[in-house]
Amino acid sequence: MTRPLRLDPDRLLPVDSVTRSIARELYREVADLPIISPHGHTDPQWFADNAPFGNATELLLQPDHYLYRMLYSQGVKLETLGIGGHPSDPRTAWRILAENYQLFRGTPSRMWLDWVFADVFGIEERLDAGTADHYFDTITEALRQDAFRPRALFDRFGIEVLATTESPLDSLEHHRAIATSGWSGRVITAYRPDPVVDPEFEGFADHLATFAALTGEDCSSWQGYLAAHRQRRAFFAAHGATSTDHGHPSAATADLAPHEAESLFDRVKTGAATAAEAELFRAQMLTEMALMSLDDGLVMQIHPGSLRNHNAALFTSFGRDKGADIPTPTDYVRALQPMLGRVGNEAGLTVILFTLDESSYARELAPLAGHYPCLRLGPAWWFHDSPEGMRRFRQMTTETAGFYNTVGFNDDTRAFLSIPARHDVARRMDCGFLASLVAEHRIEDWEAAEIARALAYDLAKAAYRL
Amino acid sequence: MTRPLRLDPDRLLPVDSVTRSIARELYREVADLPIISPHGHTDPQWFADNAPFGNATELLLQPDHYLYRMLYSQGVKLETLGIGGHPSDPRTAWRILAENYQLFRGTPSRMWLDWVFADVFGIEERLDAGTADHYFDTITEALRQDAFRPRALFDRFGIEVLATTESPLDSLEHHRAIATSGWSGRVITAYRPDPVVDPEFEGFADHLATFAALTGEDCSSWQGYLAAHRQRRAFFAAHGATSTDHGHPSAATADLAPHEAESLFDRVKTGAATAAEAELFRAQMLTEMALMSLDDGLVMQIHPGSLRNHNAALFTSFGRDKGADIPTPTDYVRALQPMLGRVGNEAGLTVILFTLDESSYARELAPLAGHYPCLRLGPAWWFHDSPEGMRRFRQMTTETAGFYNTVGFNDDTRAFLSIPARHDVARRMDCGFLASLVAEHRIEDWEAAEIARALAYDLAKAAYRL
Amino acid sequence: MTRPLRLDPDRLLPVDSVTRSIARELYREVADLPIISPHGHTDPQWFADNAPFGNATELLLQPDHYLYRMLYSQGVKLETLGIGGHPSDPRTAWRILAENYQLFRGTPSRMWLDWVFADVFGIEERLDAGTADHYFDTITEALRQDAFRPRALFDRFGIEVLATTESPLDSLEHHRAIATSGWSGRVITAYRPDPVVDPEFEGFADHLATFAALTGEDCSSWQGYLAAHRQRRAFFAAHGATSTDHGHPSAATADLAPHEAESLFDRVKTGAATAAEAELFRAQMLTEMALMSLDDGLVMQIHPGSLRNHNAALFTSFGRDKGADIPTPTDYVRALQPMLGRVGNEAGLTVILFTLDESSYARELAPLAGHYPCLRLGPAWWFHDSPEGMRRFRQMTTETAGFYNTVGFNDDTRAFLSIPARHDVARRMDCGFLASLVAEHRIEDWEAAEIARALAYDLAKAAYRL
Repeated sequence: MTRPLRLDPDRLLPVDSVTRSIARELYREVADLPIISPHGHTDPQWFADNAPFGNATELLLQPDHYLYRMLYSQGVKLETLGIGGHPSDPRTAWRILAENYQLFRGTPSRMWLDWVFADVFGIEERLDAGTADHYFDTITEALRQDAFRPRALFDRFGIEVLATTESPLDSLEHHRAIATSGWSGRVITAYRPDPVVDPEFEGFADHLATFAALTGEDCSSWQGYLAAHRQRRAFFAAHGATSTDHGHPSAATADLAPHEAESLFDRVKTGAATAAEAELFRAQMLTEMALMSLDDGLVMQIHPGSLRNHNAALFTSFGRDKGADIPTPTDYVRALQPMLGRVGNEAGLTVILFTLDESSYARELAPLAGHYPCLRLGPAWWFHDSPEGMRRFRQMTTETAGFYNTVGFNDDTRAFLSIPARHDVARRMDCGFLASLVAEHRIEDWEAAEIARALAYDLAKAAYRL
Repeated sequence: MTRPLRLDPDRLLPVDSVTRSIARELYREVADLPIISPHGHTDPQWFADNAPFGNATELLLQPDHYLYRMLYSQGVKLETLGIGGHPSDPRTAWRILAENYQLFRGTPSRMWLDWVFADVFGIEERLDAGTADHYFDTITEALRQDAFRPRALFDRFGIEVLATTESPLDSLEHHRAIATSGWSGRVITAYRPDPVVDPEFEGFADHLATFAALTGEDCSSWQGYLAAHRQRRAFFAAHGATSTDHGHPSAATADLAPHEAESLFDRVKTGAATAAEAELFRAQMLTEMALMSLDDGLVMQIHPGSLRNHNAALFTSFGRDKGADIPTPTDYVRALQPMLGRVGNEAGLTVILFTLDESSYARELAPLAGHYPCLRLGPAWWFHDSPEGMRRFRQMTTETAGFYNTVGFNDDTRAFLSIPARHDVARRMDCGFLASLVAEHRIEDWEAAEIARALAYDLAKAAYRL
Repeated sequence: MTRPLRLDPDRLLPVDSVTRSIARELYREVADLPIISPHGHTDPQWFADNAPFGNATELLLQPDHYLYRMLYSQGVKLETLGIGGHPSDPRTAWRILAENYQLFRGTPSRMWLDWVFADVFGIEERLDAGTADHYFDTITEALRQDAFRPRALFDRFGIEVLATTESPLDSLEHHRAIATSGWSGRVITAYRPDPVVDPEFEGFADHLATFAALTGEDCSSWQGYLAAHRQRRAFFAAHGATSTDHGHPSAATADLAPHEAESLFDRVKTGAATAAEAELFRAQMLTEMALMSLDDGLVMQIHPGSLRNHNAALFTSFGRDKGADIPTPTDYVRALQPMLGRVGNEAGLTVILFTLDESSYARELAPLAGHYPCLRLGPAWWFHDSPEGMRRFRQMTTETAGFYNTVGFNDDTRAFLSIPARHDVARRMDCGFLASLVAEHRIEDWEAAEIARALAYDLAKAAYRL
């Protein structure tokens, strides 16, 4: 039995009829605003080459660890899905997704995918075992058309600017190719220095050597190493970057005396740092990066609290980023104090904080952001980039930090086709939250309209200096 | 002034009229499904002997620490209620409950009791000082009738299977008696080895001696001790057990080398372990139990995070389980890593995780269960087995773990008469949650109906292999 | 364009029409009950001297760190607002607030201020850049009238009792002046001994000397020091105090043997305690204070978990209490065990617990308060004294602790004019919460009415022994 796939125009809006009608009005005004995507993980080569995407599995399933982690949790073998380079038949993999699609009920993945199916590909039946082949064929065929090439979709999606994330060791050749291609799409980079900042990153010592070769700086000395960062940051800025991004296991910062930092670097640079030294070095580097941001104006993003590669056997067989990163409790109050003691009162600096630990929203992040001039709160992140997660974010941060210490939405995704769906979810949830404030007479309707626009567009553009 | 006692047919369903009518439809289809009670603490002797229960106080008040902890918190002396074997007049104790019944407003105890009063005993006035004697007499008199004996109530309640929990040292005579009695009720045991696994359990060294005597294994050796477990697990399985249960202070697991485990056991077996050794031994035993589960198929339940006997004076006077166990922050991510490193990728193993620390739902438990094939999430537990607690459980786990990594409802109770009320609360709250997803167009109505049935019946039966 | 300022009569009540009408009924019965303000930080000199307040900025902006912390977070310099004694023009400061008033959208400050503007001063347009001067003039002019002097406002606000908070070193001269003035207003003190209990308080050793001079006790000896406390507690009680208040960084308590306490005091009294000694001394003093409360009947309030003066540079330039105190994760279960082991089972003692760490509501505080006879839960505090914060408090504590282990509302403010607004918010939110329980048939309407009155008035009066 085939079930129709329809996206209800009121989806995600509050159920109460009074609140829903307020939310509808708010949403109508922001639904079609251009998309500002200041933080994400799409591949710039897509837009440089503008080659067609391959097939449904390659485009939608294999790059999306949200999908295969859920399948894996219910006993599906990753090999059968072709993850980690294991050979597999794309159609077979797609059928496995289809047969198990009920697992995603109630998850954001389901909403994003349904949007892609209905809105991007015009499919009118729900995905299940019976429609799996129809889906695979429809999508794979569409991808052969010019209208489904990366640049065409970018334009169709109404993206005003899209940031990718690159290592300092990246040549940025794709960004250069995009810039010189004559295409009007704005695809910029962001400086993500973890491979040369985190002594526990695989290949750290080798990365330092490459960093030196690339910059001509002496990366065996602390000053040379810092100079190499300054040089690459400038190079990234010249390729459009307006921000840096830091994905540390904790939010620890440090403010060591120069000679202490130097001698720490000397221990760390060999790749033989202890865990404590590695943590301290990452901590010191957050402060160093903040100081550089004061100079060059790059906005700093801190994404802490994920314990990477929790599943050692899976890591060995399939590698990084396979759905086995797990959040941990994250302290911000003591962790950030050294850095904030150094630069926290600088209104010219912007540091955007993210969390995977929602217990810190009301207890730590909102009080910090509602005080320090340099701090802003990033949106609900990763596992919390979902209707309930977004609602909790607003409920737990607004009363202490307000709306204007937040920075709008980040899609943070490598699933390019889902970007409009993700922004649409955020806009709907924010309009719903605002509508509830109006309905409870906590703000006026005209204020809600101003805030809705700020959350959907203005704040991201301003905070990321775009 | 007497107040009528009525159970509204719409109780606990969402207030919004659209959502309520969706919830009503969902609930109607699951309200009368048989009860699967895979985890609880009723006394198997009740069903073995089928003797009548005594009186209202003995049946409803004295075994229920939810009730007397609240009374105690407001200054009622436990002695006057006959707790801990202190002599007291049952009618007087009942009057104290009645006079203080307003204390339970807004608590689940109040809902469960009102259901028992109205539905099991047919009482039509609310409990208060004025109706205390009427209640006591009505209930006590009813209990003399055959229709109120344990087996009759079991049948009337529509219980398909009821699991109790026993120590490895238990003879399981009552389960044997039930099995050979000719009565059709399915009352099974579960293997709860804390008394022989936790070196800090009162009488641990003596328990090891009994364990040896019971199994004929040499429990002074590590291998003999493990063999004793294997033997008793098989014995429990032969008496219907499909699961084990582990109530440790933390979720710590370990994966020691065999000789390390052996030498740890040698230090622990004397009953003179340090706190750290005791913790490490419990941790290692979780991994050992998981390995045995891989062999014998018993489902493993981990119930961590309660600091037992917080009130030392009360413990001295009244003993264990008197309402003074208090939850503590509980780490799962690092704690479970050793065990998961050993068995986490085994799809043939089922480990069900519970928590008293709701901050771990979205941060740790849902991400873990949404990845590891062996993991499932147990329902909202103990203090959180309540309307708001259940709602938070679904709101904070569904978006990352989905519905199908959860296992339906556990009543976890020794209050036998409240079992149907507890399952009814869970079914109502789940239907309400699903209805809100339908009303917000996040799932379809037919999907909600499938999920409602799964949460009420199918998932518990499958997860516990019943 | 001028926007009208109107306070909707239904503000903060639930949106659903059925629930709202239940809430309205409940609210109507409690809206005008007298205000019991058992904990706060108004200045008793206001009521002793009854001098007119100065101007809008001096009255409403400069004492309110909620306001200027938000302005500061968005780059406003505190100097320009005249904070910390820095000279500034009051009208200019007011204009800065007005121009940035949108920052407060969605915050409780906005609700409290709008209430003050509309209800106390009768202003009919919203505050913004265009109405800034009108506001400043209207308010400043009103303050010159007798009807706006402190005592007149106190009477107009319907305050039955107002507690302030003083150090043991305070002479209580203002309270004496009020008592002998012939004015009927009841303004009482509370004993806040942090300056002589916390070895890390600035000037601790000097404070001990003053403490000795004031009491005639030998405060260089442990017994003399304790005797000084007893004497000052009696002095405070004679000036109306019914409570003590303790604002420690953590909830740690200790129960040292007398000679250990004595030798700890000997190390601490010099002002040279280590951080660990200081923490242990504060911990021991909570138990000592509890023992004294057993004797003299003063209710004990514990306000833990704020990391004071997080921003060192700001502290140096502007001093304490400038919006840079940040909450931290707070343990109660192990922390309180020593004190509870000593006095926890005393039904004659009342210890009221507060938290800035909402993750402890359901996990720790409700289970503790639902067991120990001496414990009660204070209301949602500080950053959580807000609609969403209050809602979470009830949702996360009621099911385990009930309503009757809570103590009604505290405004905890130095912003005198906002006191009625704050109590009004609490009454509205509690009525809304109760209405939702009624609408879901979890309690009856007549029970909700009883509880609403208890939360608005009775419980505070009883718990604080007023």
